[in-house]
Parts: sequence; C-alpha cells; structure tokens
Amino acid sequence: MKQITAEIIAIGDELLYGQIMDTNSYWISKKLDQIGVRVVRKTTVGDNEQDILHAFNSAQNRANIILITGGLGPTKDDLTKPLMAKFFDCTIAPFSEAIADVKTFFEKRGRELTPLNKLQGHLPSKCHYVKNERGTAPGMWFEENNCVWMSMPGVPHEMQYLMENFVLPKIKSIYTLPVIYHKVIKTAGIGESWLADMIAEWEDQLPEHIKLAYLPSLGEVKLRLTAFGDDITHLQDEVNDQIEKVKPLIKNYIYGYDQESIAEAIGKMLKVTGKTVAIAESCTGGYISHLVTAIPGSSNYFNGAMIPYHNQFKTDLLGVKEETLSTYGAVSENTVIEMASMVREKFKADFGLASSGIAGPGGGSPEKPVGTVWIAVADQSGVKTKKLQLAHDRSLNIQYSALAVLNLLRKVNKNQND
Amino acid sequence: MKQITAEIIAIGDELLYGQIMDTNSYWISKKLDQIGVRVVRKTTVGDNEQDILHAFNSAQNRANIILITGGLGPTKDDLTKPLMAKFFDCTIAPFSEAIADVKTFFEKRGRELTPLNKLQGHLPSKCHYVKNERGTAPGMWFEENNCVWMSMPGVPHEMQYLMENFVLPKIKSIYTLPVIYHKVIKTAGIGESWLADMIAEWEDQLPEHIKLAYLPSLGEVKLRLTAFGDDITHLQDEVNDQIEKVKPLIKNYIYGYDQESIAEAIGKMLKVTGKTVAIAESCTGGYISHLVTAIPGSSNYFNGAMIPYHNQFKTDLLGVKEETLSTYGAVSENTVIEMASMVREKFKADFGLASSGIAGPGGGSPEKPVGTVWIAVADQSGVKTKKLQLAHDRSLNIQYSALAVLNLLRKVNKNQND
Repeated sequence: MKQITAEIIAIGDELLYGQIMDTNSYWISKKLDQIGVRVVRKTTVGDNEQDILHAFNSAQNRANIILITGGLGPTKDDLTKPLMAKFFDCTIAPFSEAIADVKTFFEKRGRELTPLNKLQGHLPSKCHYVKNERGTAPGMWFEENNCVWMSMPGVPHEMQYLMENFVLPKIKSIYTLPVIYHKVIKTAGIGESWLADMIAEWEDQLPEHIKLAYLPSLGEVKLRLTAFGDDITHLQDEVNDQIEKVKPLIKNYIYGYDQESIAEAIGKMLKVTGKTVAIAESCTGGYISHLVTAIPGSSNYFNGAMIPYHNQFKTDLLGVKEETLSTYGAVSENTVIEMASMVREKFKADFGLASSGIAGPGGGSPEKPVGTVWIAVADQSGVKTKKLQLAHDRSLNIQYSALAVLNLLRKVNKNQND
Repeated sequence: MKQITAEIIAIGDELLYGQIMDTNSYWISKKLDQIGVRVVRKTTVGDNEQDILHAFNSAQNRANIILITGGLGPTKDDLTKPLMAKFFDCTIAPFSEAIADVKTFFEKRGRELTPLNKLQGHLPSKCHYVKNERGTAPGMWFEENNCVWMSMPGVPHEMQYLMENFVLPKIKSIYTLPVIYHKVIKTAGIGESWLADMIAEWEDQLPEHIKLAYLPSLGEVKLRLTAFGDDITHLQDEVNDQIEKVKPLIKNYIYGYDQESIAEAIGKMLKVTGKTVAIAESCTGGYISHLVTAIPGSSNYFNGAMIPYHNQFKTDLLGVKEETLSTYGAVSENTVIEMASMVREKFKADFGLASSGIAGPGGGSPEKPVGTVWIAVADQSGVKTKKLQLAHDRSLNIQYSALAVLNLLRKVNKNQND
C-alpha cells in the first residue's frame, strides 16, 4: 500500500518573530497520524510573497496533501488568498454561497457587513469553497498539480472545526489509508517510571505490531497502544485483549480511555450513580468548578460552588469556624475538612470537595512553603483528605491541585462501589 | 544595513507525528527577534537522511544563520552528527575536550560511562565544539558555505543553555545587527474588520519602517507595530508617537499592551484604585474566577465568588428572588442584575460581576437558543448589563462570556474614572 504523505505550511510573521506559538501544526500532525497519513515536513514562512510561493512549490514535490494555515483574514497583511490564485493561475471571483455565509454570520450577531468583510466571500476561482461555521475566513480546497490542498484560517478553533468536519473525512474518502488503531489508557496519581516498572513484563510480551508509548502530562500519564495491520476489527480485538491483561496490574490508577478527561470520567460516574457534587475552592480559585462545568450535561450532577478567597467569607458565607482558621490556619487539614463538609451541606450534595493552599508566588512561609495544598472530599460517611507539596509555579499548582481533587473524588466514589 | 537572517531546523520523527510539540523553535525565534535577527523560515523534518540534507541545503541559500535542534542523542535514530559531517565533507573524529566533558558529566552523577556515551565526544572534524553543561549531547558550531551553523540537542533546557551562553553572544559579536522594536496594542470587544475601518487612515500614514499586523484571537484583536532602524530610543519614541495618534480612535477598545491579558489589566486597574470584586457565575461555571485568580496577587482585589448552578441555590444562597426566576427565567437581564448586586453585597465588594446563559449543547429553546448569555457588572451606582448571542460550542461560549464580563468591568471602571 502506498504511504500517503502530508506537509503542513503555517503562514504568518507572528510565528517567525516568536509572538505566537504555532500550536496548529502540532494539532494537525496528531490528527493526521491517527488516520494513518504520514507528515513529512512542517514549514513556517512569513507574510512574504516569495517565501510563500516557494513553500507551495516545494511542498507539492514532496507530499500528497498540503495543509495551509494562516494569512486569511480580511486585512491587507493577509496574502494566502491572492497567492493561491496566482500559484494556481486563476482569478479571485465572488462566490455567492461564501458571500451569503459571511452575511448570515454577521446578521446572526446583529452586526453590519463591512465592504472588507464582504470581500471574504471572494475566492480563487479554482477552489472548492468550504464553509467555516466558526468565523468569516473561509476554508478553500483545491485539487491541483497532483496534490490536494486545503487553506484554513490560523485561529485554532476555526482551523479545528474545518479539519474535523471537512478535511479529515475528505482525506479518508479519497485515499486508501493503512489501518492504524490507537487506544489510550489514562492514568492519574502515579509517575511514569513507577508505572513502567509495574507493567514491564506485560510490555515485553507485546507483539511486534503493537507499540506502546508513555505520554506524561501534568498529574497524569497516558499509555498509548498503537496497532498496525489491515483489519480494524482484528486490531481492536487484539488491543482490547492486551488492555484486559494490563488492567489488573494498574487498576487503581486507570480513570478512563482515549480522549476522556478526568472530569468527564467523573461526570459519567456521577450520572450512573445519580449522585451530586458541590465544591469549596480557595487556592484553585474556580478552576475545579470550571473543569467540572466544561463537560456538557454537568448541570445534572454539579449543584454549585463557593470560592471564599478571604478567610472572612470562609466563615461568614461557608460556615468554617473562626476558631479552626485561627488555630490551624486556612491552609490546613482541619480547614479543608470543614470546607468540604459545609459546602456539601449548603448545596445539598452527595459529595463536597475542597481545596486550600498557597498557589504562589507570594504567601509562603517556612512551615507552609509555596506549593503546600490541602484537598478534601466529604461524603455521608466522612471526609478523605490529602496534602500536596507542589512547586513554585502558580499556574501549575492550580491545575495540578484541581486534578488531584477530582482524582480523590474518583477514588472515594470507587471505594464506595467496589 | 544588511538584514541578518536566520532559519531554524527542528529534527525528529516525534515532532512530525504529533507526539511532541516543538516549543524550541518558538523560544529560539523570540530570542532572535529580541536581538534584531530576522527569522525567515522554520522547518521541521523527520529522522531521514534525504530530508535533513535537503533542509540544510536549501537553508543555506536563504539565511545567514542556521540553528538546528534535535537528532543528537546516543541512539541510532539520531542522524544530525553524521549528516553534518557528510554535508560539510569531513570525518567524525574524537575531540579530547568533548570526551573529557562527557566523562566528567557521568562521574559527577556517580554513573559509569558507556561506550555509546563515549561516542558523544566524537564530532565532525570541521566543527567548533561547544560544551553543554546540562547534558551529554554537545553543541557544534560551524562556519561553512558563507553561513554560521549551530547544532543543539532537542531537550529544551539544554538547548536554552547553549543559546544563552554561547549562540546569542556569538551572533552579536559577529554581526552588526539592526534594531527592531515591537509594541502590541491589545483590544477587546471589537472585530478585526471594524477595527481596520476605524484606523484605516492612520494605518496609511505609517512610515515605511513601521509595520502593522492584526492578530485576532477569541474575543480580542492585537495590533502589532514593528519598527526597524538603528537606534532603539528613537524607534521607541516613534512607535509611542504612533500609538498616541491611534489611541483616540479606538480608546474604548484598548485594554492593555504587549503580553498583558485582560485579567492582568483588570488586576492592575483594581490595585491602583484599591477596589475589590466578587463574582456570581452561572453558565461560566467558575471560569471568570479562574481567569481572575490565575494572576499572582489577585487576593488583593478578589474577595470571592459563588457558583449557584441550580436555581434553588441562586435563591437560597445568593438571595435572588424566587419571583424573578419564575417570571423572567434564570437567563434574563433581571436575574443577572440581582446576581451581580447580591454577590457584591454578600462579599462586601466594590464590583459585583454576574453571568447567566445557555452554554449548550443542551438547554436551548426557540426564545432562548443555545449561546444566549446575559452578563452584568454592579457597582455602587447601579448595574450595567449586556446580552450576548453566541454560537453552539460550549467551551467557546464559556470562554467568550468570561472575557466579555471582564471587558464590561473594564469599561464600567473606566467610565467611573474618566
């Protein structure tokens, strides 16, 4: 089977001058990898005619598929559209469907169409217009010079919309792609090297055509199994058999599979058991609630939250005893126990979650340095707590603590049901 | 003055297959930009002889400086070293200093030198060896084919060490560099094309050596001014003069400059005025509070928040009237007015912020479709509200609404002080 190859071209001075990190090329290459397309090169060029044309020209000698991001807005520094017309030797013409879509996009938002925006519906005549539901810069698909080409805006969520809804399905329909099956096991609460030790024997017995990769990220380690072959059902069966073998070795750490986040896993769990949750956040400042409510349907199990950032409100509004705060301090086991219990009561929930800590960079002391965080989960039988000792980065401390609270909830709930 | 140009080449299959995000090229381009070197291209290629040699060959026709990361470890898939020797037509030879450094590196860590690691001290004979204090893969500097070349390991902190301690000072000593000055104006609450219309005349009168770029992202548009010249103070003055000219045209939309986020801008503003804020979140589910508390020092002005996700708690805990909810519904101007006023009172804050809407994907109705969001900001003089009509993506609706609330707070506070 012929290997189908792709090249990704990102356009924009801001990418060359270090003003924006190109996360698009990374995202695209991950998606292409999943469907069995091999990315052979990524190129970033500036808003410069000669460089852009050179990139188009050399890409078509290397790859079957050329995906282009950026340089598509309504303003003058955006060159992609005129240069694609030049490169494919065609004019820029009004596309009535594209103009109508831009118009509707503005109407829906109660705003008037400017002449500049109307021009966003004018496209290279050789392109197939692809509607961008998330913005006014259109997608443009070309089949020229023995390659397929797609030009997309550089705004990540617009590009992602076009990739998911048009480009990936289209590529799958055009090419015969090798069969690759990925399955990701998601674990939390254990480091990469410990995990590797626990599953070393299992890893050694994996067949040649099933590869294992460790993908560590904040507070979790993903295990990705990738199987190559030509029959998807067979690959799925093989991978699932391997997962059944590894599960008993690490079952306390697995919270989900594939794209599932820990908040989704918890949502699923709460829906099944019909239970509800409420959260009292101090150092995490709303981030736990955000993770929970980012999941569609979370109103079924999330009753609400309180963020009493100052001690006064921990007492006045949440009901933590003044004595507890003055004796043990806000960052203490006693305080998070009361926070979790009180928020559970106030919001009439089955589970009460709490966090209190020193996120940094200020506020540390010798006894409680920056990165000291107490977390708690209360249910009808009592309160489970945990102390975290994290590092000096405020943002990472907030994220890690929030994930740790959710993981503690997962374990408490699991023990109830085991 | 001749513009000095650079090209960045990142090597590694893992970068093409979406397993690792290439943060190195971004970091390097930012550093080069600061010293006035113009990056003209970034290229990522896999562990493949032909592709790597092609990248070397075409880079030397475009740039003065070629910076290469990756492909330098001790294992066989690392090709950079043999290919640099091949490309510059020299042998690989033992460098006694490099071998000694590898040996010391291992000794210091109480580990024995493997034969594989000893080979890390064998380098292309034409290179100038550069010691890597943070690892065993050496830096290699070449002056060949009218270019300077530096090969560095792909591990970010090792690459950064070599850049800071050797590459950047070396480049500054070799070349006479132009001076570049960037300044970014950050705007919120207006689209790219409206902004472009408002400042068209100003844009047209910009001198040739000051370039303007529009950088749109969710809920905001950045305007980047880049000035080229040879005197930094003069450029700063010129750019500041231009900013003073454009300010009156768009002053209601500017919230900050350079890296400042809207939450930081608000933090600064609240610190200056000594005012405090409290937040009642419904559809944003904690995300506004997260944005505010992500900023170090936010405990100075953030009193706390409540997230009464269910109507029952909007009444019981926050004090919204039952009648308001039953007459107008939770997603209504009346409800957000009460939410903002009540949370301001409960948390004894100067400003009370509120959001209530249908984030989706479920919960919409013909009168209140998914994406309908009411936001409010209360202060001692009353409550300002705004209705947003957003789209169908839950995550974007949450993010956009949160930014809109913060922007409304910015405007309310600005009007107080104008």
